[in-house]
Amino acid sequence: MIKAGIIGATGYAGVELVRILLAHPKAEISAIGSVSYTGKKLGDIYPSMANLIDLPLAESQQVIEQSDVVFLSLPHGHSEEIAEAAFKQGKKVVDLGADFRLISSEEYTHWYGAGYKAPHLHENVPYGLPELFRDNIKNANLVANPGCYPTAAALGLAPLIKEIGTSCPIMIDAKSGVTGAGRTPTETTHFPQCNENIAPYKVASHRHTPEIEQSLNLVSGGQNLVAFVPHLVPLNRGILSTMYVKPDKTVTAESLYEIYADYYKNEEFIRLMEIGQATNLNQVTGSNYCDISLHFDKRTGYVMVVSAIDNMVKGAAGQAVQNMNIIFDIQENTGLKMAPLAF
Amino acid sequence: MIKAGIIGATGYAGVELVRILLAHPKAEISAIGSVSYTGKKLGDIYPSMANLIDLPLAESQQVIEQSDVVFLSLPHGHSEEIAEAAFKQGKKVVDLGADFRLISSEEYTHWYGAGYKAPHLHENVPYGLPELFRDNIKNANLVANPGCYPTAAALGLAPLIKEIGTSCPIMIDAKSGVTGAGRTPTETTHFPQCNENIAPYKVASHRHTPEIEQSLNLVSGGQNLVAFVPHLVPLNRGILSTMYVKPDKTVTAESLYEIYADYYKNEEFIRLMEIGQATNLNQVTGSNYCDISLHFDKRTGYVMVVSAIDNMVKGAAGQAVQNMNIIFDIQENTGLKMAPLAF
Amino acid sequence: MIKAGIIGATGYAGVELVRILLAHPKAEISAIGSVSYTGKKLGDIYPSMANLIDLPLAESQQVIEQSDVVFLSLPHGHSEEIAEAAFKQGKKVVDLGADFRLISSEEYTHWYGAGYKAPHLHENVPYGLPELFRDNIKNANLVANPGCYPTAAALGLAPLIKEIGTSCPIMIDAKSGVTGAGRTPTETTHFPQCNENIAPYKVASHRHTPEIEQSLNLVSGGQNLVAFVPHLVPLNRGILSTMYVKPDKTVTAESLYEIYADYYKNEEFIRLMEIGQATNLNQVTGSNYCDISLHFDKRTGYVMVVSAIDNMVKGAAGQAVQNMNIIFDIQENTGLKMAPLAF
Amino acid sequence: MIKAGIIGATGYAGVELVRILLAHPKAEISAIGSVSYTGKKLGDIYPSMANLIDLPLAESQQVIEQSDVVFLSLPHGHSEEIAEAAFKQGKKVVDLGADFRLISSEEYTHWYGAGYKAPHLHENVPYGLPELFRDNIKNANLVANPGCYPTAAALGLAPLIKEIGTSCPIMIDAKSGVTGAGRTPTETTHFPQCNENIAPYKVASHRHTPEIEQSLNLVSGGQNLVAFVPHLVPLNRGILSTMYVKPDKTVTAESLYEIYADYYKNEEFIRLMEIGQATNLNQVTGSNYCDISLHFDKRTGYVMVVSAIDNMVKGAAGQAVQNMNIIFDIQENTGLKMAPLAF
Repeated sequence: MIKAGIIGATGYAGVELVRILLAHPKAEISAIGSVSYTGKKLGDIYPSMANLIDLPLAESQQVIEQSDVVFLSLPHGHSEEIAEAAFKQGKKVVDLGADFRLISSEEYTHWYGAGYKAPHLHENVPYGLPELFRDNIKNANLVANPGCYPTAAALGLAPLIKEIGTSCPIMIDAKSGVTGAGRTPTETTHFPQCNENIAPYKVASHRHTPEIEQSLNLVSGGQNLVAFVPHLVPLNRGILSTMYVKPDKTVTAESLYEIYADYYKNEEFIRLMEIGQATNLNQVTGSNYCDISLHFDKRTGYVMVVSAIDNMVKGAAGQAVQNMNIIFDIQENTGLKMAPLAF
Repeated sequence: MIKAGIIGATGYAGVELVRILLAHPKAEISAIGSVSYTGKKLGDIYPSMANLIDLPLAESQQVIEQSDVVFLSLPHGHSEEIAEAAFKQGKKVVDLGADFRLISSEEYTHWYGAGYKAPHLHENVPYGLPELFRDNIKNANLVANPGCYPTAAALGLAPLIKEIGTSCPIMIDAKSGVTGAGRTPTETTHFPQCNENIAPYKVASHRHTPEIEQSLNLVSGGQNLVAFVPHLVPLNRGILSTMYVKPDKTVTAESLYEIYADYYKNEEFIRLMEIGQATNLNQVTGSNYCDISLHFDKRTGYVMVVSAIDNMVKGAAGQAVQNMNIIFDIQENTGLKMAPLAF
Repeated sequence: MIKAGIIGATGYAGVELVRILLAHPKAEISAIGSVSYTGKKLGDIYPSMANLIDLPLAESQQVIEQSDVVFLSLPHGHSEEIAEAAFKQGKKVVDLGADFRLISSEEYTHWYGAGYKAPHLHENVPYGLPELFRDNIKNANLVANPGCYPTAAALGLAPLIKEIGTSCPIMIDAKSGVTGAGRTPTETTHFPQCNENIAPYKVASHRHTPEIEQSLNLVSGGQNLVAFVPHLVPLNRGILSTMYVKPDKTVTAESLYEIYADYYKNEEFIRLMEIGQATNLNQVTGSNYCDISLHFDKRTGYVMVVSAIDNMVKGAAGQAVQNMNIIFDIQENTGLKMAPLAF
Repeated sequence: MIKAGIIGATGYAGVELVRILLAHPKAEISAIGSVSYTGKKLGDIYPSMANLIDLPLAESQQVIEQSDVVFLSLPHGHSEEIAEAAFKQGKKVVDLGADFRLISSEEYTHWYGAGYKAPHLHENVPYGLPELFRDNIKNANLVANPGCYPTAAALGLAPLIKEIGTSCPIMIDAKSGVTGAGRTPTETTHFPQCNENIAPYKVASHRHTPEIEQSLNLVSGGQNLVAFVPHLVPLNRGILSTMYVKPDKTVTAESLYEIYADYYKNEEFIRLMEIGQATNLNQVTGSNYCDISLHFDKRTGYVMVVSAIDNMVKGAAGQAVQNMNIIFDIQENTGLKMAPLAF
C-alpha cells in the first residue's frame, strides 16, 4: 500500500482527496495535515467524514514523515518550502497549488506577483496532465497538478491545436461551480449573492490564462493566445468550457470527430459525444471524466469545443491521484473508476 | 386608460405581462385569453395571481374586442391570423412571438421551416427594440417584440458595431435561466436534470441567430456574422451574454466606455458598469434594465462585452409594455420603473 | 409626501425598503444611512440600485433630521438610542429589529442576553402585525416590526388559536431562504455549504420563539407553548411554516376554512388556499402576501397549517411600510400591491 | 461474483443501482432491463454512463435468466408478476417498489387503490430495513426494499419508540429533493416551478404513512400514529425529516443520546451527531449513511429527532444492495463504503 499524506486536508480539494483515497485499493491515507485545525479530526469540521477517517489533523512535518507521497493542497506560495522538506526525506510530492505549474519564472512573477524562492526545485517539474504529458510524469519526484480551468481547456483544445492549429486567439468562455472559489466565505460566494446569478470575474485577467497557453504551446510547438473569461454559476461542482477556435485548415464535423477520437483513443478518462450532441456538465459530476463535444459552424467557419469536468475530481483531487498512480507505476485508473452521479 | 388585452396569458411571458400591467398607471388589463384554460381564472393556474385579477380567461376574439392593444404571447406560427383579426377592428398589436421579427421571408422560412401565410402583414413592421429603433415604433399598428437573446446581444453590441465595427464573426456565449424554455415540462427542464448542470444547446443553430444579425446589420449597415451558443443554467430568470469581438479599429477601455456612454446617454433602461467592473445577472432581476460591462483584452486585442437582462422583463413582457407606451405616445418608462430584486 | 429615512440601508431589509419605497406613491426616500459605507452611494454596493437612488449614505443623525419617519434596520441592541434621538425631534420610528418586540423585559433579557437600556421607551410600543393588532398601531410614534418567522407563524395560527384553541404545545417547522441570515458571509451561508443542503439550526432555541408565543397569547388570552424548529433551505427568499396543532374542539376541513375565511375577511394581504390545496412558497415571492392552507388529518386529529411569506417583504420591509401607512393614516395597501413573481 | 440484474434500469433508482454495483467487488451487473428503451444502451439515455456499461437494455425475462438476483425498480403494481417469474427460475428478488412492503393487504388496498394479485407471494416477505429487521432478511428469496421517507423516519424514531414510547401521534415533517419524484417531467418538477420554492404535498395523505407506522409498530409492539407531511425542496438528492415526539417517560438530552448510541452501537450506516449539533442533509449525499441528531425541548417536553439520508442510496439503491449482501451472506457493507460528497 502506498502511504499517502495530505497537507491542507481541510480545504475542499483536501477533503476530496480523502474521499477518493479512502476507496483506493492500493493506497492508504497515512496522515492528514492542517495549520488551522491541528489536533482535531476531519469529522469535527466535515460531519460527512465522521467515522470514515480517524487520524488527527497533524503538522506538515509529521505528515511528511508518515507518508510515501505527500499531496499539497495549499494557497500558492506555500508549496516550495514543504516540497523541499519532503525531498530531503525522499518522499514524492503532488502539488495541487499553482507554485510549480508555470515553466517560465517570468510568467509566474508576472501573474502571481512574486518570484520563485527556490528556483532549483522548479527544474524539470512535469505538468501533471497525463493525457497530454504522461511520459514526463513517470518517475517524477514532484508533479505540478494542473488548475481546474486549464485542465478543461487544454484537454478540450489539444487535438485541434496539435492537428489543425489556429493563428487566431482562442476565446474560452468558462463556467464554474462555486466550490472552485474554495472554502472561505466571501461576499461573492455568499449564498444569496451566488444563487440566481451568473458572475463573470477576472475577465481576461485570470491567473489560469498563462497556464492554458503553456499547455497549448507545448502541444502545438507554437504560440497560442487565449482570451479567457471565467464565470461563477450557481451550482457546486464542475466546469463547463465553451471554446471558440478559427481553425487554420478546412474541417468538417466528421473530420474533427475523427481527429479527436484518434488522439484520445487510449484515454479512459476522455469521452467524446457523438456528432450533434452537446456535452452537459452533470454527466461528469463526481467522476474523473472529461467529456467533450465538437461543433462546427459552417456559417462562420468557427469550431466550438465544449468540455466538462468535475473541478474537484479531474480538476483537482482525481487528477492528483491519477498522477500518483503514474508516479508509483500502478494502473493509471486505479481508484478512479467511480461512475458520475448525474443527478 | 389604455385597454390592454393579452392572448396567451397563461404562458410565462403572459403572466409577466399581467404582473407588469397590474402596476401600470395608464393601462388596465381589459381581457386575458387562453386556448387551454378558457373560462378559468388565472389564479386557478397560478396561485400567485389569486385575488389580483378577476377576469376569466377568454377566447381570442373576445380579447380583441375588449382591448385597444392586444399582446400576443404565442408559439410561432399563430400570430398572423390573430393580428389580422385585430387590425380589422382597428386594434394595435404587440407580438411577443417570432412571426414578425425577421424582415426577410427567406430567412424566416429557412430558420422556422415554414413561410409567411399573410405576407402583406409583414410590410414595415418595426422591430421593437426601442433603444435602437425607436422612431420606427411610433405610430405603428403592429410591433414585433424582440426575442430574449437578441435583446441582450443587440443592446450589448450596437454601439461597438456602429462606431467601430468588426470584420470578423462575433462569438456570443449566452447563458439563460430556465424560464426561457417556457412553461411546458420537458426532459431538459426537469428539475433534477437542470439543477447542478449547465447545458449548451442548439450550438450555432438557434433560431435567434438571424434575428441578432438582422439587428446588427441594421445598426451597422453592413453584414455581420455571429456564432451564437446558448446555454441553460440552473436559475429561473435572466440572460447573461458574454460577447467576443475583434474590433476593426484600435480601442482602449476608456474609448470603449465613452462610445457606449454617448450612444446610450438618453437611455433610462441601459446602465453601464464602471471600467473594471463586470455586470452580474442578478442586478437586473425583475426590472427592465439591460446592464452592460465592457472589457478590453490587450493581450489578444479582443473586446468582451457582457450584457444582462431579465429575460421575462426586458427580454419579453417589459419590453412589450415599453413598446405599448411608445405606440400610445405616453412616457416610455411608464409602469417600468420597478427596481431589481437582486436577492 | 411622507419623508422616509432608512438607517441600516445597506443590509438586505434596508435595500428591500428602498426597493419598495421607490415605488410608493405617497412617500419619498429622504435619506439613507449606513455606518460602514458613509459617503458612498447605494449603487456602489448594490449595482442593482445604480441610477435609482442618488442619495449618499449618511450618518444616523442626518437621516433623522431629514425624515418624517425613520426605519431602523439594525442588529438588536442598537435601536433604543436612535429611537430616543428621533423622538426628541418629533419623528416616527418603525424598528425592524428585535429591540422593541417583546413586552416582557424578562423574556428579552432571557433570550437576548442583555436588558433594556431605556425601559421608558418600551411602554405601549405596539407590535406591528397589522392583521392582528391594527388598532394599537394607529397614532403610534414607534412600532416594533415583527420578525420574519413570527409573522408567518402568528398569521397562520391566530384564527385557530383564537376560535378553537389548543392545550397542547404547537409544533412549528419553519423553512427559510438564506436572505433571512442577512448579508454577512459566514460558513453556514457559504454557497457550497447551503446549496443542495437543508440545515436545521437553533432547534427549539431560536430567539423568535418567545415572540411567536407572545402573539399567540395576545390573541388567545391564554398561555401557548411552541416548539419551533427553523431550517435553512437553498433558496433566496421566503419562509414556509408547517404547523401542527391538536385542536381543543372538533373540527372539519370545512369548519376550519370558514373560521379562517371569516377571521381574515377584510385582510387584503392574507390569501387562503381552497380546501385540498397546499400553499407553495413561490406564490408569494416579491409580494406582501401571506398565503395560508389548512389541512385536517382525521387519522390523528391534528390540524396542519401551512403559511408562506416573502421574508423580505411581509416578513420585513413590506410590513414595515404597511405599518408606516397605518401610522400616517393613508390607505394601508398603498405601495404594497405588487404582484408576486412566482417564477 | 453475484450476477445482479436490474429491471427498470433507466429510472433514477435503476441508474443509481448501476452506479453502486459497478463498484461492488463481489457483484457484477449481468443484465439491465427496460420496457421503453429495449435494445438501447444506458449511455444513450444517460451520457454519464457512457463507456461504463456496455450491456444493451433487455426485456425482463432475459434479465431474470442472466441473473442470480434481480432488482425491480418499477412503479407499484408491476412487481408481482416479475417476482413470480424469477422464483420459478430460482432467482432472488429485491423489490424497490411498494408492492411487497405492507404486511396488511387491507392497508395496501386502502392506500394504493388495488389489491394483491398474487397473495401467496406476500407471505413472510421481510421488510428490508436491515438496522431494524436484519434477521428476517437472511435467507429470504424476496425482500421488500423500504421507501425513502419510511427509511428516514423509521431509523430516526425506532430507538425512541422502542425504549421510551409515545402515546401521542408523531409529527413527521419531511423535506425531499426532487429526484424523489422520479424521472418523468411534470408540472410540479418543472425547474422554474421547483426552484426557489418549497412545496408541501399530499399533506397527511401520502402512501408512505402506513409504511412508517408499520415499522414503528413492529419495533414497539404497539400502535403508533403518525401525521406525515412531505415537502419538495429545490435540490436533487436527499431527505431530511424533522420529527416531533412527546415521550411517555422523562428524558434528557443525555439519556436520549445514550439510548440511541446503544441501540445503534453495531450499525455502520447510522451516525449520531453529538448533543447540541443538528444533522444537515449534505453530510450524507452520495453515501449509504443515515445521520441522526436528537434534541430535547425542556420548555414543551417534546423530543425532536432529525434524520438525513440520500434518498437514492440509503433510501433506495444503496439499501437494496445492502439487502443483497445480507441475502447472499457477504459482509453487509460490501460496495457501500463510499464517502459522502458533502459539496
